[in-house]
Amino acid sequence: MLEELKKEVYEANMLLPKYGLVTFTWGNVSGIDRDKGLFVIKPSGVDYDKLTWEDMVVVDLEGNKVEGTYKPSSDTPTHVEIYKGFPEVGGVVHTHSSWATSWAQAGRGIPCYGTTHADYMYGEIPCVRNLTKEEIDAGYEVNTGVLIVNYFKENEIDVVAMPAVLCKNHGPFTWGKDAHEAVHNAVVLDEVAKMAARCEMINPKNKPAPQELQDKHYFRKHGANAYYGQNT
Amino acid sequence: MLEELKKEVYEANMLLPKYGLVTFTWGNVSGIDRDKGLFVIKPSGVDYDKLTWEDMVVVDLEGNKVEGTYKPSSDTPTHVEIYKGFPEVGGVVHTHSSWATSWAQAGRGIPCYGTTHADYMYGEIPCVRNLTKEEIDAGYEVNTGVLIVNYFKENEIDVVAMPAVLCKNHGPFTWGKDAHEAVHNAVVLDEVAKMAARCEMINPKNKPAPQELQDKHYFRKHGANAYYGQNT
Amino acid sequence: MLEELKKEVYEANMLLPKYGLVTFTWGNVSGIDRDKGLFVIKPSGVDYDKLTWEDMVVVDLEGNKVEGTYKPSSDTPTHVEIYKGFPEVGGVVHTHSSWATSWAQAGRGIPCYGTTHADYMYGEIPCVRNLTKEEIDAGYEVNTGVLIVNYFKENEIDVVAMPAVLCKNHGPFTWGKDAHEAVHNAVVLDEVAKMAARCEMINPKNKPAPQELQDKHYFRKHGANAYYGQNT
Amino acid sequence: MLEELKKEVYEANMLLPKYGLVTFTWGNVSGIDRDKGLFVIKPSGVDYDKLTWEDMVVVDLEGNKVEGTYKPSSDTPTHVEIYKGFPEVGGVVHTHSSWATSWAQAGRGIPCYGTTHADYMYGEIPCVRNLTKEEIDAGYEVNTGVLIVNYFKENEIDVVAMPAVLCKNHGPFTWGKDAHEAVHNAVVLDEVAKMAARCEMINPKNKPAPQELQDKHYFRKHGANAYYGQNT
Repeated sequence: MLEELKKEVYEANMLLPKYGLVTFTWGNVSGIDRDKGLFVIKPSGVDYDKLTWEDMVVVDLEGNKVEGTYKPSSDTPTHVEIYKGFPEVGGVVHTHSSWATSWAQAGRGIPCYGTTHADYMYGEIPCVRNLTKEEIDAGYEVNTGVLIVNYFKENEIDVVAMPAVLCKNHGPFTWGKDAHEAVHNAVVLDEVAKMAARCEMINPKNKPAPQELQDKHYFRKHGANAYYGQNT
Repeated sequence: MLEELKKEVYEANMLLPKYGLVTFTWGNVSGIDRDKGLFVIKPSGVDYDKLTWEDMVVVDLEGNKVEGTYKPSSDTPTHVEIYKGFPEVGGVVHTHSSWATSWAQAGRGIPCYGTTHADYMYGEIPCVRNLTKEEIDAGYEVNTGVLIVNYFKENEIDVVAMPAVLCKNHGPFTWGKDAHEAVHNAVVLDEVAKMAARCEMINPKNKPAPQELQDKHYFRKHGANAYYGQNT
Repeated sequence: MLEELKKEVYEANMLLPKYGLVTFTWGNVSGIDRDKGLFVIKPSGVDYDKLTWEDMVVVDLEGNKVEGTYKPSSDTPTHVEIYKGFPEVGGVVHTHSSWATSWAQAGRGIPCYGTTHADYMYGEIPCVRNLTKEEIDAGYEVNTGVLIVNYFKENEIDVVAMPAVLCKNHGPFTWGKDAHEAVHNAVVLDEVAKMAARCEMINPKNKPAPQELQDKHYFRKHGANAYYGQNT
Repeated sequence: MLEELKKEVYEANMLLPKYGLVTFTWGNVSGIDRDKGLFVIKPSGVDYDKLTWEDMVVVDLEGNKVEGTYKPSSDTPTHVEIYKGFPEVGGVVHTHSSWATSWAQAGRGIPCYGTTHADYMYGEIPCVRNLTKEEIDAGYEVNTGVLIVNYFKENEIDVVAMPAVLCKNHGPFTWGKDAHEAVHNAVVLDEVAKMAARCEMINPKNKPAPQELQDKHYFRKHGANAYYGQNT
């Protein structure tokens, strides 16, 4: 079942090593079929060079495995919560990519210092708090997803305009309209995280880009008045 | 039309991913035919691995598309202003290359700390201010070009001796006698930006190279008394 | 003799250049046959691209060469002490990998700033002191091993839960159940060292990850209640 | 003439791009035939991918071209002085490799922070002062060589035990018993420069490695009592 989606999610997973976002098995991509209410995700702890598209695991929105030889990624419950909480999302990525993870380990959101950031992500990329011991014990992975969703809802952040989040002392999650766009955003996030760290090194008193510049770049690529790229 | 120039500009564009200066479609190169008053530029938002030389777009110095299947790069009006303002320029490059962009995001010009810089660029690489909200609203891309040209004219900077500029919170533009030399300068700029950041890390009180050393290196490669390289 | 082990250790050695952990000949991997009390190690100062599995040297737990054309690695006495002191260890790696070595040169243990670290190594990765002049003169390599073993025993550190150590002003040793796992841990160590340095740059007042988060990640991959990966 | 030496020097030059030490044409390697009093050097400003062994230029110890289609490297007079001043030297390398150049631009010698450094270079890698305007005007390249040679002689530094120097605001020179070893030392220098910068970032109050540890590592690889590597 879901063969096309499995192939798409497999290919999106294989982009992670291609773009240098993962070491060993440290990453996973999923993609959802909203009509069927099922998503496809990488199996847990399988090497990228042994992975085939048939190894992808089908999971429902309760987190139950519906089809697959392998156990799904241990982060599956986080993906479930993101899909349930953000209906606009069609694909989810988790990595330990090194620059984004360095910001997560530092417990800081990434300020918007320039147009590379503003072209894809509107405003500061948030870093959510640590889970409490009680939340970890009650269900670490599910509560990671609950925390992300609640943070975005409480702070009224648009998940389309901000397709990334950092989990403190852990690493990033990104998303998009499908698995491929979620990977695209994971690449952007790590590049933006790298340049933000370096520009603070170059100017320790650096301030975010002016709001009007952020607006200009975000809205020339996104929304009704976008004019970047081809009309496809 | 302009088939040779299209091929030349296409090849120059393809050097950007080769030298690691671009992620995805974040960059564009153009080259001009001064006799015809037309330039050739990369189409907007097309992947480098799908690009062919026939996809290059021909634009006039009013910014009108003269020939091409695709829309030209969204930065085309900036290229127009640079060509109009700097008659010596035959090729223009814009990238978000990571070290140069980090300096741009930090809002600082790059001091000349050594001979690698002085071999190609004479003096501090300038960083121009943010556009105002009014300038952005009136025409972001065109006013970016106007700002660059005015900055060089007001400060009497020789565009041949300083083939690079940083736009605050955005990224670099470089130029040269043709598209290929403009890419060459983009590579130099990112390397120079990297070493300048690192040498400030190694010595936070670092000062620019002595003027006589900058002069020596710049003028052994450029001008009437140059003796670096072969006499070709 | 020990042909299978030689092949395994040879392959593990060849992973060092593959993962970018060594420059020239700066690294060595060994693996032990506990039943026979013999281990296999890379010869000293031989280029990786000239190495064959037959070049591997067999050594006993007194440090005597038992078989081999070449002299064993000059670090062999350190490997001997680690095997004698830590019966759980089946493979040992020494490299000068750049980020781990930078921490060793800085004389600091690596705090656990995140889950990437906690997934593999439980707590701060220790940095042992310099040897005294007397210890160096009496036997530099053997006393390096003695120091590591004593440090772990005196501080009651579990060598399975902490498969890495830094030697001050020198570099890292890692280990594992076999040569391959020891290399795996060497890769993890350098990645963790890189992200720890960067996250201190991003937040100079950074604190280690909460203990409950470290526990969660370590124990979801290790021990009786592990649930990461496939049940193999 | 000198065909074997030309091939050797050509191959040594081609190692510079292989090891990532050069951008474009920013580097040159030479090797000397002491019996004939002639050395072979890369031509000035020729691309590495167009270079052939026949392009190598033969120069005498007065700096005169003896054979070759092309002009020799513009740094030739510096090589001449190093060969004349240091009879032990058989090969010389100049690069703008990024970490060593960053230290040179910062005007600092590289302290010996660890055994990677001590394995090859005994003590702090020196950074010589800027030339004065008079020295530059009288002969920039020749006086660069004179400055290096005088610095080593005045400070009684052994050129075999310290095969590298940084020129302030410029970049490194390295040398060795032949062209290949000089390149080897250029690779070591950049790696050592990288780790020294990073370890100061990790511990801003860092101190050099204890003298007895530096002695141990240097002398286990060099001199009468060396025991690293094979007896060849």
